[in-house]
Amino acid sequence: MLCANIAVNGEGRLTFAGQDTTLLAQKFGTPLYLLDEDRIRENCRAYTQAFSRLFPAGSKVLYASKANAFRRIYGIVQEEGLGVDVVSGGEIYTAKAAGFDLKNAYFHGNNKTDDEICLAMDCGVGTFVVDGEDELSAVAAEAARRGIRQKILLRITPGIDPHTYEAVATGKVDSKFGVAIETGQAAELTKAALALPSVELYGFHCHVGSQVFGEDVFERGVAVMLEFMAEMREKLGFTAAALDLGGGFGVRYDEGDPLLDVGRKLESVSAVLHETCARLGYPVPAFLMEPGRAIVADAGLTLYTVGSVERITGYKNYVSVDGGMTDNPRYALYGALHTVLPAGKMNEARLLRCDVVGKCCESGDVIRPAADLPESTSRGDLLAVCTTGAYNYSMASNYNRVPRPPIVLLSGGRATLAVRRETPEDLIQFDQ
Amino acid sequence: MLCANIAVNGEGRLTFAGQDTTLLAQKFGTPLYLLDEDRIRENCRAYTQAFSRLFPAGSKVLYASKANAFRRIYGIVQEEGLGVDVVSGGEIYTAKAAGFDLKNAYFHGNNKTDDEICLAMDCGVGTFVVDGEDELSAVAAEAARRGIRQKILLRITPGIDPHTYEAVATGKVDSKFGVAIETGQAAELTKAALALPSVELYGFHCHVGSQVFGEDVFERGVAVMLEFMAEMREKLGFTAAALDLGGGFGVRYDEGDPLLDVGRKLESVSAVLHETCARLGYPVPAFLMEPGRAIVADAGLTLYTVGSVERITGYKNYVSVDGGMTDNPRYALYGALHTVLPAGKMNEARLLRCDVVGKCCESGDVIRPAADLPESTSRGDLLAVCTTGAYNYSMASNYNRVPRPPIVLLSGGRATLAVRRETPEDLIQFDQ
Repeated sequence: MLCANIAVNGEGRLTFAGQDTTLLAQKFGTPLYLLDEDRIRENCRAYTQAFSRLFPAGSKVLYASKANAFRRIYGIVQEEGLGVDVVSGGEIYTAKAAGFDLKNAYFHGNNKTDDEICLAMDCGVGTFVVDGEDELSAVAAEAARRGIRQKILLRITPGIDPHTYEAVATGKVDSKFGVAIETGQAAELTKAALALPSVELYGFHCHVGSQVFGEDVFERGVAVMLEFMAEMREKLGFTAAALDLGGGFGVRYDEGDPLLDVGRKLESVSAVLHETCARLGYPVPAFLMEPGRAIVADAGLTLYTVGSVERITGYKNYVSVDGGMTDNPRYALYGALHTVLPAGKMNEARLLRCDVVGKCCESGDVIRPAADLPESTSRGDLLAVCTTGAYNYSMASNYNRVPRPPIVLLSGGRATLAVRRETPEDLIQFDQ
Repeated sequence: MLCANIAVNGEGRLTFAGQDTTLLAQKFGTPLYLLDEDRIRENCRAYTQAFSRLFPAGSKVLYASKANAFRRIYGIVQEEGLGVDVVSGGEIYTAKAAGFDLKNAYFHGNNKTDDEICLAMDCGVGTFVVDGEDELSAVAAEAARRGIRQKILLRITPGIDPHTYEAVATGKVDSKFGVAIETGQAAELTKAALALPSVELYGFHCHVGSQVFGEDVFERGVAVMLEFMAEMREKLGFTAAALDLGGGFGVRYDEGDPLLDVGRKLESVSAVLHETCARLGYPVPAFLMEPGRAIVADAGLTLYTVGSVERITGYKNYVSVDGGMTDNPRYALYGALHTVLPAGKMNEARLLRCDVVGKCCESGDVIRPAADLPESTSRGDLLAVCTTGAYNYSMASNYNRVPRPPIVLLSGGRATLAVRRETPEDLIQFDQ
């Protein structure tokens, strides 16, 4: 199985986090996002335990909450000792509503509006990750106006291509994020930040990409960033206290994807960090990472009900479900391939090759092409789509005026509603 | 200019529907969806006037409301004499809340859930467009249970490739929509429908695609469908009263896109309809079309505020705005190219070649690559993105926990809020 939380019970039905998916679908309806809270906590601990073993005091794991942001998740990651990466006023507002201590929040994003900068300072967001010159001016001006000294990181593009999806590759020089080392602009921004009394430069951030499996991407990132930091020390007399490497390791969407050992991967990153610091005579900085997908993706599973099975003689078969690109746009956006399972018929042979498609009036509304399901698949059957904990709910839309599904948290045999299902009444509440 | 509703005033500022976009942005904030109600009505009339001139009694133009669905739009198209194409319970609910007479609604979609079928019958939706065998059974069963006879069309795939975007090409045999003529499945479904006493087969529907510019796509669709209808008359003794050809003609996203004369295009379709009917000795059926994009796209314009201008020496320039793929996912999904204008600096030379990108923490969050803007573009400037009336608001998400923008309707010099701006409070209302 893709993940240890997926199994089959004696009735041939899929269980997730130890609970019968058929019973969950009956209780909460479909489409339904399930989130295995215990798995989220395990994923958090894989990082935090390795961090406390491998990195110096002040190091921290930040949950990149854009992967899946709703009130309860901020409480869970806080309980596990993580900070958070927030990217908007909306995420800050949600974290605050959850009682999250925002001094442990890092405010990201390539374009923070004036309103968001004010909200973040009102809420006491600990650290701003400043993306460029325009933003440095805006943050410094607002901090000066308030008479505070705002802690910041500068976002740097190290020029590393992580060989992953184009849309999630952000460490290359040509990026909308951050300023490049190669062009000299990173050095200029550092100098500018050091000259501003209303900001306190704490260190540097880079994000080499998301869903990274590459053998040495993070290691190369550490080395490139430390070389840059050593150069800044030499030229500007500034020693950075922190290095934030962004991102997290890849997760399994398919049985063919590698199973990573987070602890071992972090040992390798830590070794490069310590060796490079020793070589450069640089004090080992606090180390930060921002796993989002790696914390929640395999903790998620979506349940759908089949609406129709269309067999086009000589062409292809289509199995339509009661959700689609509205709750999971990842195939439409990235061609991402999620694993689909026949939740109620796990022991049947899977001889029906079919495209699993959504209910939107749009040909591109595909959940998974070329899935294999039982020949007996028919209207009313339950399907499960795996590894949907990240970038599903957070990217969901009301396209076709379809209400968004609820999120049910599973933990220790209990199932608790964390986000309720939208209703048609909800959809028109903004209409005048 | 792309559309007659776009102009420049004496202060060098962009006007839309005769109103100064800078003043609208000041009044309503950004990001902001503007919709030119007068243009929507003109677009409706281009179809309705040609229809009344060219097609027999009972013919009707249906607004495909998935293009942009909110309460007020249903009232506008009803006032213009259009019916609507609805694709979900949510659209039906919204249309009903707007006071739309649902006997003029056609219920589409490849997967109508049992709940949606019930809701549609509760609301008196006039016609169901039945997508296949599973759905025919479900609709017939519910109609029988209620003791009614539900009017239906059957959705057929005629096997026409409209040479448009893959994701919006739906008339090919290999489609999740409808049943194919070629495989004999369309004939079987017709036979099955005629045998069911609880449904009244009114005619046939096909959708050859959206954003169609091809010279003869609709004409070929008419001919293929009429041949099929004649065959059904011969084999099953059934004469269809209506032919629904779906879709609408293409709209201009770029100055290079052709400017279509809807009236002339429809004359050509009407000629083929009448000629083919004459040749086959078939009574000319009521004719239906379902323009969505063609009704609202060029009535829309989105206003954004620039947050940063990043010039990566030797690489590329990025201009970030305060919205992005959350309010306009069309580049991320389809690579669609919208025209971007410097709303406050229309008379300046446009020498800054740049990617206009959104504020989401995602490299794929691009509004328009390779746009040309003034060299002076800087934080606080206003940008306008054109032709955003279709598939922008309706596809919007809260990704990155970003609230969705409001819709302001412009008509006769007035600006009226039609959908209010979401707030951070709105975002967490579903969180438990």
